[in-house]
Amino acid sequence: MSTRANSVPHPTLVKVDPFVPADEQKGLHNRWHPDIPAIATVKPGEVFKIECVDWTGAQIGNNDNSDDIKNVDLTKIHNLSGPIAVEGAEPGDCLVVDILDVTPFEQMPWGYTGIFELENGGGLFAREFNSRACKAIWDFKGIYATSRHIPGVRFAGVSHPGLIGTAPSAELLATWNAREGALIAEHPNAVPPVAFAPEPVGAYVGQDLDDATRDKIAREGARTVPGREHGGNCDIKNLSRGSRCYFPVFVKGANLSVGDLHFSQGDGELSFCGAIEMAGIITFSTSIIKGGIEKFALKQPIFLPSPIDPLYSNKLIFEGISVDYHGDGKQYNMDATVAYKQAALNAIAYLQKLGFTREQAYLLLSAAPVESHVGAVVDSPNACVTLALPVGIFDFDILPKEDGLTKHDLGQCAIRSDGVL
Amino acid sequence: MSTRANSVPHPTLVKVDPFVPADEQKGLHNRWHPDIPAIATVKPGEVFKIECVDWTGAQIGNNDNSDDIKNVDLTKIHNLSGPIAVEGAEPGDCLVVDILDVTPFEQMPWGYTGIFELENGGGLFAREFNSRACKAIWDFKGIYATSRHIPGVRFAGVSHPGLIGTAPSAELLATWNAREGALIAEHPNAVPPVAFAPEPVGAYVGQDLDDATRDKIAREGARTVPGREHGGNCDIKNLSRGSRCYFPVFVKGANLSVGDLHFSQGDGELSFCGAIEMAGIITFSTSIIKGGIEKFALKQPIFLPSPIDPLYSNKLIFEGISVDYHGDGKQYNMDATVAYKQAALNAIAYLQKLGFTREQAYLLLSAAPVESHVGAVVDSPNACVTLALPVGIFDFDILPKEDGLTKHDLGQCAIRSDGVL
Amino acid sequence: MSTRANSVPHPTLVKVDPFVPADEQKGLHNRWHPDIPAIATVKPGEVFKIECVDWTGAQIGNNDNSDDIKNVDLTKIHNLSGPIAVEGAEPGDCLVVDILDVTPFEQMPWGYTGIFELENGGGLFAREFNSRACKAIWDFKGIYATSRHIPGVRFAGVSHPGLIGTAPSAELLATWNAREGALIAEHPNAVPPVAFAPEPVGAYVGQDLDDATRDKIAREGARTVPGREHGGNCDIKNLSRGSRCYFPVFVKGANLSVGDLHFSQGDGELSFCGAIEMAGIITFSTSIIKGGIEKFALKQPIFLPSPIDPLYSNKLIFEGISVDYHGDGKQYNMDATVAYKQAALNAIAYLQKLGFTREQAYLLLSAAPVESHVGAVVDSPNACVTLALPVGIFDFDILPKEDGLTKHDLGQCAIRSDGVL
Amino acid sequence: MSTRANSVPHPTLVKVDPFVPADEQKGLHNRWHPDIPAIATVKPGEVFKIECVDWTGAQIGNNDNSDDIKNVDLTKIHNLSGPIAVEGAEPGDCLVVDILDVTPFEQMPWGYTGIFELENGGGLFAREFNSRACKAIWDFKGIYATSRHIPGVRFAGVSHPGLIGTAPSAELLATWNAREGALIAEHPNAVPPVAFAPEPVGAYVGQDLDDATRDKIAREGARTVPGREHGGNCDIKNLSRGSRCYFPVFVKGANLSVGDLHFSQGDGELSFCGAIEMAGIITFSTSIIKGGIEKFALKQPIFLPSPIDPLYSNKLIFEGISVDYHGDGKQYNMDATVAYKQAALNAIAYLQKLGFTREQAYLLLSAAPVESHVGAVVDSPNACVTLALPVGIFDFDILPKEDGLTKHDLGQCAIRSDGVL
Repeated sequence: MSTRANSVPHPTLVKVDPFVPADEQKGLHNRWHPDIPAIATVKPGEVFKIECVDWTGAQIGNNDNSDDIKNVDLTKIHNLSGPIAVEGAEPGDCLVVDILDVTPFEQMPWGYTGIFELENGGGLFAREFNSRACKAIWDFKGIYATSRHIPGVRFAGVSHPGLIGTAPSAELLATWNAREGALIAEHPNAVPPVAFAPEPVGAYVGQDLDDATRDKIAREGARTVPGREHGGNCDIKNLSRGSRCYFPVFVKGANLSVGDLHFSQGDGELSFCGAIEMAGIITFSTSIIKGGIEKFALKQPIFLPSPIDPLYSNKLIFEGISVDYHGDGKQYNMDATVAYKQAALNAIAYLQKLGFTREQAYLLLSAAPVESHVGAVVDSPNACVTLALPVGIFDFDILPKEDGLTKHDLGQCAIRSDGVL
Repeated sequence: MSTRANSVPHPTLVKVDPFVPADEQKGLHNRWHPDIPAIATVKPGEVFKIECVDWTGAQIGNNDNSDDIKNVDLTKIHNLSGPIAVEGAEPGDCLVVDILDVTPFEQMPWGYTGIFELENGGGLFAREFNSRACKAIWDFKGIYATSRHIPGVRFAGVSHPGLIGTAPSAELLATWNAREGALIAEHPNAVPPVAFAPEPVGAYVGQDLDDATRDKIAREGARTVPGREHGGNCDIKNLSRGSRCYFPVFVKGANLSVGDLHFSQGDGELSFCGAIEMAGIITFSTSIIKGGIEKFALKQPIFLPSPIDPLYSNKLIFEGISVDYHGDGKQYNMDATVAYKQAALNAIAYLQKLGFTREQAYLLLSAAPVESHVGAVVDSPNACVTLALPVGIFDFDILPKEDGLTKHDLGQCAIRSDGVL
Repeated sequence: MSTRANSVPHPTLVKVDPFVPADEQKGLHNRWHPDIPAIATVKPGEVFKIECVDWTGAQIGNNDNSDDIKNVDLTKIHNLSGPIAVEGAEPGDCLVVDILDVTPFEQMPWGYTGIFELENGGGLFAREFNSRACKAIWDFKGIYATSRHIPGVRFAGVSHPGLIGTAPSAELLATWNAREGALIAEHPNAVPPVAFAPEPVGAYVGQDLDDATRDKIAREGARTVPGREHGGNCDIKNLSRGSRCYFPVFVKGANLSVGDLHFSQGDGELSFCGAIEMAGIITFSTSIIKGGIEKFALKQPIFLPSPIDPLYSNKLIFEGISVDYHGDGKQYNMDATVAYKQAALNAIAYLQKLGFTREQAYLLLSAAPVESHVGAVVDSPNACVTLALPVGIFDFDILPKEDGLTKHDLGQCAIRSDGVL
Repeated sequence: MSTRANSVPHPTLVKVDPFVPADEQKGLHNRWHPDIPAIATVKPGEVFKIECVDWTGAQIGNNDNSDDIKNVDLTKIHNLSGPIAVEGAEPGDCLVVDILDVTPFEQMPWGYTGIFELENGGGLFAREFNSRACKAIWDFKGIYATSRHIPGVRFAGVSHPGLIGTAPSAELLATWNAREGALIAEHPNAVPPVAFAPEPVGAYVGQDLDDATRDKIAREGARTVPGREHGGNCDIKNLSRGSRCYFPVFVKGANLSVGDLHFSQGDGELSFCGAIEMAGIITFSTSIIKGGIEKFALKQPIFLPSPIDPLYSNKLIFEGISVDYHGDGKQYNMDATVAYKQAALNAIAYLQKLGFTREQAYLLLSAAPVESHVGAVVDSPNACVTLALPVGIFDFDILPKEDGLTKHDLGQCAIRSDGVL
């Protein structure tokens, strides 16, 4: 038999155990800093795999209450695998990254979506809903996910890394810390916080480092919460398996890190822990375009989407404008974030007519392949943003009918064991 | 011959001449007010047509300078055809509107996109660019548009009414004027203005009215500039021919008005006069769902998109976050409008590498079927918004290449006759 | 006002009255022959319109019986508008034709689908069903069609010319007549016939011609029934408005003719008069690629599809193989035509479970945007062909359910006034 | 840590080694017969995995000549994993099968496409090309495949089982053997054969059976080559991961078997070994609809396609009609198989202009996500069938250009070690 010859699996450059806390494993880190050394080096063109823990680093369980969400330690979140250096990459270059596949671990065919407490993590409606911890566990069945906590829906995952980026240079890191620090200074007591300053507590680099380096990284390292000009935690659902991304390079080797894998996500990732969060495996190949930052005027990543992103052509679309319809009726000035919040609240109200609870609806909009378009941002004073709900993900007909909507009995998502909602 | 029998054209309920100023024509109005009488009444299920002037009411010409844009009279804009009453519609109902087709006039196979002056109309980048008047004329060739002012592109139109809505009740109108007045009071000297208060100058209703009614409408009538809970100027490109929209009804008869037809538009309609603006004909049919506002929790319109919206699957996607990369580097707090502006500026910088001028690129992003998604609005402090440029609309390859981008000679759009840019 | 200037409608090069018999009108012809002179000449790049009668030339009425279908005169069918010469086109070139739009006449907002009698026209199941005349009238409502004869469905048209082609050279015409004559000679008494030889009866050219030329054309001219290497009656639904087609050129000027406009059609056009047949207007522009036949190895037309073809992503797909399941069970040898017939019969049987009559189902599969794919033609002895029914065109749910399918009361299509079915 | 709890992988019911000959492994069979016992039983709703060898059962190697293709033993092909019984399924029921995922083995990230010799396997153009063995090896890189033997292309796989079906009853098996036997009797000396009678040589059932049963199966068992009313080797590329299929049930338990996994395939699977053939893993869940054959008039399977089938909207489409343009010019009578062959030959001629060899082009059309539609099968005498080539799978521009096509240097596919082509 001849087939075993030349059958060479793609190498796995970072291996993790999805059931072990992130800060007990090698090859992970949870801060951005130029001094974190590459843990592996690849040549352009090589296909390789990286294993990732879920973004909390194994803090959340497959069970039916949300106490783990309530108590999550947010100093240890957004764990990344890497960095991976690419031979020949230098500052000023463009690193081309093919995201060839993103899959869960075979031994962990499930993920979760959570609503955080107002005081511990927040989320888009943390204040509007005075949020208490909620959770939905999703079972992975091949390309599909279903949830015992949100019955009546099944959808194909638009699987992607929520968080992927190249390492910042020292200068870029300083810029980040300065500008975000200024914002924090303007809003010192915000709940949830408006931004996160460097925080030594919980900082982790799963490599052998000297103490000075480790301290420096912990003290200066940018939090992995937001997206920035190197990519980072952009949570763009269409940066999915099959897409090709062009990153600016800021340090020698580019030093690519990745984590926060999502089985699926709706545009906006509303509830913050809003994707179907999972541990899993990502497959990459890379190439370099010398001087690409200048060639493409590359201030931030650009990308080409995947040909296999789920196609649900039939949609129900909700509009939102920058007036707080669901609150005090205040007029905002061309604020697309407010407009999107209104569109989402309109959708939640509609889903409640179908029998979903408010929390189920919030989780569902966060996790399903919901699309949000900016309609217009020029018709003063109202920005208009839309939210499109794919009709085909529901087991029953959700379209408006002459007789109104049928209210189904859909139970409730997982809530706190003390019953507080 | 038997075929002439039963060949009954759909009736046209409002007829206009696209070459005559709006305020000289019957059946048009440019303010929202419950006292504007219906000019025609239809039964549910009837198919009918409405003709519309372009949004400026014939102020712009098919020529090669932008002086008409510079001098546009903005008190007379957003002219609407209607209102059309629907038999049986009452406050609290849902008016279902099928937008069956949207076409240009045969005698006017062209449209335009404009950049307004900073001091006369503005636009998303009015301040960033210190905008001076620019224009592109688009020729309609069946389903496609091309422009002598933006060579190298051709695309299918996602034709739609920029402005469509039901009449407000007196209460709703009062709410609008109150909340927008409060915003104006906060920003009294903004250039461009943050909102537009009722303005008797330029107010127009093309019907025989007694003076008291006409004065009242002029004095109280809401401007037709923004979208609001009745629909209005939402400029949602996917509310296109073939879509079905569900409007809340606030007055007896619903009193539907429509205008500001667009041959095409990109998400955001960036330059404000940013769609391919056209005069044309819209075909409707309607039905009523009694008590629909309650049945569907309808605070704003919802809609089903069209099966014939142009499909360009190959896209180049730009990311933007809420940091002012193209200006002072300031960090904003989860501001999706800022994020979208950054994505658009990134795209403009890229298009300039291909040979488009900044103004051509701005016009193109406004007019072409560009898609903008809200990526994430939860990763503090950065909202992430993307802008997707359809690759297939260009005559040449725009994708990133090893050797960089080829700069084409693409001339310039129409500018002011005094050459000021 | 400046907008009337430079507002030049696209010229109409052939004008027809859709209610007048084709053989009483100028600019039409119903045979292919190189000696039919061009009736107009265009320059490459010009946008122009051509009006077309329906394929029967006004023989069918908007009424509720099928007697006109029963009695249709098939010697006068497939009427074409043209030919149009393109300046500079020569044999060996490639004529690029942009099909910019295809619309019905405003004064005739309806079309029809027919099942012909076995002995007068036939159709794919003429023998299986021993077909008697049936008809459905479709009402055009913007981009959509509905039928009082097939209730429960509404769909967007994939509007296209069923018949479009360049004129044959004398040599090519001779080839056609020879090869088709040989086939007829093999099947001399087939009902319906296997092919159609030149037939002077009914031949028509709506131009002033000398008698000798007219006689020659009538005597030698190829029937317009089938598609051939010049295009012709290919009935490809995706050669639709927005597509770009590359035709081989066989005579000086290329001499493009067009007709048999379809508002919509399913793959296969099963019932022969199976599209939604309409009179209407087609908009073109052309260009020439010198020596294109050699450059592109162009034995037959090639084309690029339209970005606005209707997208119905949710489909129910029927399989068929080359065994006569609905008849005697005979095994055929890799015959894709038999396989497609089986798939279609399977679909008809399914639709009957939903309440459609056999004839309604046959008409619906012919007219709606049904897709047929060749699955495999290599697994001896069975070709496998699929037929995909778009789920979104139905007013009710057609998917398989645990409890079976709900049988709706959907009446019947138009049948003969004598009631024979 | 709580996440390991409740993390239960989906069970694998058939395990194989892709590098070991099929007839040395348990759980495989290569004939259809009602007496082959189920090797496992599942409950409705369970998610489970089945491993499959490649269709030849490990006869083909990852190397650069085609001698293994030349010498393939075709008595041992189309190996199936199974059968799997479903609790509660009875004759007359409908077995609903969710094809949840189809992936290659991690240890075998490659597949192959072959052209068989005329005398050993054939293929659609075996006679036209007097085919000699050729091969392309494809490397799997996440969702994409590339080939060193066909450079210049990369595409996403529409991964699916070529062969899937329920077990036949004794009566159905007898029907198959009778009707196929009759066809063979009509064409006794065809090369390649028109069909394959039961053949004891090479018959295999990887279970412990008594001799009588084993002999009976070998003597009577239907070959696994064609598709039939139970499904079987239909090679429908869109019966892909994410699709839902409805099979008729003919025996107690339904007894589902599956094999011949394809990473990708073009419509038609032209070269017979034309898909990207692979060994791999398929994930299923099932349910039963009692009496479904009657409820849905189910003579053959029906299915719902997947939302993640690759979307390449930009296509170049070739037409073919039932005239042998590439041979003797003969006119066929409405033969869709001939029409498709012509479309494919037109495409091959075009691809040769781009630098592909005839054999590379043949392999590429077989393996890439090429779409073939039946255009029309009613315009006597010509069936019209189209073949759509996705433009986005090529590294270079393949569209027709004014200057003709650029001929690239693309080498050759793997051929025989003796150099015979």
